[in-house]
Amino acid sequence: MIVRNLGPVDVMSKEDIERIHEISLEVLQKEGIEFHNEEAREIFKNNGARVEGKNVYIPRKLVEEQLRIAPSSFDMHSRNPDRKVTIGNNNTVLAPGYGSPFVMDMETGKRRGSTFQDYIDFTKLAGASENIDVVGGVLVEPADIPDKIRHARMIYTGVKYTDKVLMGSAMGTKKARDSVEMASIIYGGEDYVKSHPVLVSLINTNSPLQFDNRMTEALMVYARYNQPTIISSLSMTGTTAPSTIAAALVQQNTEIIAGIALAQLVNPGAPVIYGSASSMVDLKTGNLAIGSPETAKMFGGTAQLARFYNIPSRGGGCLTDSIIPDAQSGYESMMVFLTTVCSGFNFVLHSAGLLENYMTMCFEKFIIDDEICGMAREYAGGIKVDEEYLGKTTILDVGSGGHYLSTDHTYRHMKELRQPDIGLRARYMSDRPLPDIVGRAAKRYKKIIEEYQAPELDRDVDKQLLAFLDGIV
Amino acid sequence: MIVRNLGPVDVMSKEDIERIHEISLEVLQKEGIEFHNEEAREIFKNNGARVEGKNVYIPRKLVEEQLRIAPSSFDMHSRNPDRKVTIGNNNTVLAPGYGSPFVMDMETGKRRGSTFQDYIDFTKLAGASENIDVVGGVLVEPADIPDKIRHARMIYTGVKYTDKVLMGSAMGTKKARDSVEMASIIYGGEDYVKSHPVLVSLINTNSPLQFDNRMTEALMVYARYNQPTIISSLSMTGTTAPSTIAAALVQQNTEIIAGIALAQLVNPGAPVIYGSASSMVDLKTGNLAIGSPETAKMFGGTAQLARFYNIPSRGGGCLTDSIIPDAQSGYESMMVFLTTVCSGFNFVLHSAGLLENYMTMCFEKFIIDDEICGMAREYAGGIKVDEEYLGKTTILDVGSGGHYLSTDHTYRHMKELRQPDIGLRARYMSDRPLPDIVGRAAKRYKKIIEEYQAPELDRDVDKQLLAFLDGIV
Repeated sequence: MIVRNLGPVDVMSKEDIERIHEISLEVLQKEGIEFHNEEAREIFKNNGARVEGKNVYIPRKLVEEQLRIAPSSFDMHSRNPDRKVTIGNNNTVLAPGYGSPFVMDMETGKRRGSTFQDYIDFTKLAGASENIDVVGGVLVEPADIPDKIRHARMIYTGVKYTDKVLMGSAMGTKKARDSVEMASIIYGGEDYVKSHPVLVSLINTNSPLQFDNRMTEALMVYARYNQPTIISSLSMTGTTAPSTIAAALVQQNTEIIAGIALAQLVNPGAPVIYGSASSMVDLKTGNLAIGSPETAKMFGGTAQLARFYNIPSRGGGCLTDSIIPDAQSGYESMMVFLTTVCSGFNFVLHSAGLLENYMTMCFEKFIIDDEICGMAREYAGGIKVDEEYLGKTTILDVGSGGHYLSTDHTYRHMKELRQPDIGLRARYMSDRPLPDIVGRAAKRYKKIIEEYQAPELDRDVDKQLLAFLDGIV
Repeated sequence: MIVRNLGPVDVMSKEDIERIHEISLEVLQKEGIEFHNEEAREIFKNNGARVEGKNVYIPRKLVEEQLRIAPSSFDMHSRNPDRKVTIGNNNTVLAPGYGSPFVMDMETGKRRGSTFQDYIDFTKLAGASENIDVVGGVLVEPADIPDKIRHARMIYTGVKYTDKVLMGSAMGTKKARDSVEMASIIYGGEDYVKSHPVLVSLINTNSPLQFDNRMTEALMVYARYNQPTIISSLSMTGTTAPSTIAAALVQQNTEIIAGIALAQLVNPGAPVIYGSASSMVDLKTGNLAIGSPETAKMFGGTAQLARFYNIPSRGGGCLTDSIIPDAQSGYESMMVFLTTVCSGFNFVLHSAGLLENYMTMCFEKFIIDDEICGMAREYAGGIKVDEEYLGKTTILDVGSGGHYLSTDHTYRHMKELRQPDIGLRARYMSDRPLPDIVGRAAKRYKKIIEEYQAPELDRDVDKQLLAFLDGIV
């Protein structure tokens, strides 16, 4: 968890934000938004919205009321009380890459389909990371195990190999319920789960202006169980969203606040996160441009809108369009991640491992991104200022032309400089051989996976979980 | 020139800044600061400071008065009126790497001594860059030409190959006067120079709490000619500065405001820039850690102190501790440069080309950094919000489940996405071969140097400058 001591960066004026809010309300009222799920439409209807076919026209008052009752922050719990995180305020909670179908093999230079073994290995890396707080999501899509069991195996892997906060499945009612049942086993009963957020799940909109059936089902399950959902738009400019950033923010905002309204109507006060994985499209090539400054700005606007609603936010990550961990991957990932943190996001998916926008996970990149996360954490921590740190006495003592190598003040503080991951890179002396950051990251991830010690899981819980997995048909 | 539409990031509270200011005044009054130049000491003495040996004890009132009369912004001119830049306000004016004794040869993987040919080649790259505004400084140290002529050859190269703003020599009275004489030739007389800032020069303090003779001489020459000086501390924590960031900022501030006071006493209202190249030292290895988050924070504090005094600021750059343009070089350079811009710095040396902290210039890195500069420029430009950009009509037109590929709004704006330097990198399709950003940067810099067209220099001016060069003995 990164704790920011720097104020969040605003990329727009207060007036701009209000205009976006106003247009969103107008769109919801005039144009409406499609909910492919019937129950969701019923809920809106019973609360005064007009429904025509799949389209729900939501009165502005109804939306505004729901936005007001969504909580501004909430705690998330895990099986290790020390791993509790607060979603909101000045915190940025980190989760690793999510959803990529491929893994990059740097030895062959080729990507291949992700496997369940990759899933386990990335879970170990996430477990070992000092920066990652949340596991159990779609770290990679393990396409070699059947779809019907995949969600449960992923949660089991998360809780078996780590004691960090878990993510739930967003793939329809059944898988969401399975997730909640597993959480009930892990945390000792449904009552505990209902009163403690323990599973955070990613609900994507279907841009423009739609919610599909599966994710809406999951949203409603989790809201009922008081489990947090990230209501996230992943629109792409010029294709599923308008091509300007401001207009893309309008459309995205319209979708997100409609989803938040639904969660609140299902269960007033249900924890939600205002989210985005929206990005620019380079219409010259048709490719996503998620490592672009425009995408970074759009994320900035997203975080600012969430602040306007006083609802926790999600966006950004260590994102790049490069397909290998090269200089481009480094500067793009740092740009997006640092602006993610400085924009004030409270939750970040994709904090480590992704290459080639969201398509590929890479073990070496995971190690490098973990370093980027640590650097951003240090930067966002701000500067410590008190009498000791201001060092007046030592400055007066040393005076002109002296040096600080042997002062007591230096002895007291010389170890405070954050050390870069030595296994990954040092601060180079000018002697050679040339550094090989990718090679060193490879050594490091292999060592972590090999030596990883999972925190012990209660035997009974383990047994019950395995029985639950066996019962899924 | 980057124009920021985002507010500057504060890394400390107003109270913290005031405490640093107060201690600095106390240090100047109690402990004093050494000026190795006699004339400077005389000037302070004549204005009420107490002088003992080389040490000048400056009353707080005297410092505060001088800080008040330093201008908050000023224009800098070049031989092309379109290249005029304003130092101050929301602008960030960029100059390339400065002072490195080595050049990295990526073909051999070895660094070698810089030459005058390197100087010319880097000048061409700076001339061709859309981001770099200022040339003529110590782009690299051309050790293969005699010291006595070096400063003049550098300025001549700057004006011969580009029409951008120039830097002057800070190496003592004679070289500063030579710089002003050359400026007088270029700009048609001393009177023009006296009333138009045309040469910006880098005056470094000698930490802790000293000003050496050479740079103080140059400071006074430039102040008399109304030419801007960057009064810059380059202290290193734990060695020439205390090891905590706050205390290092105190000492740095003490030095800088003493230098600014001298400039104002020499010529009230002389343009000055509050500057820093200070950095953290990793005391485990004794190496600089300029690509570290702590250095980025320290720069943030520097910019904030300059804002407190309402004086333009200098700091940061595309800085890294890596010795090759790898992922580390990418993420470190982006971190420092983006925070440089977002911290609100008005002038940035080291915007492009440096590797291995300040030791080595690299042609490939120059090209990559230029891309980083362009990305930061785009980010800092903020989000355009007006009726057209908010796109309400197009959102209502497309509605749920449609697409934006064929809307008029998309046609109007689809070309606005900033294109990354295509010669350098594309947004990769997932097909191969693997990208080679360093190889592409090499191709690109060679092409630029080969095809570079210098803006024509007035023949008479050229002749006079060459005669002046010949006259230096």
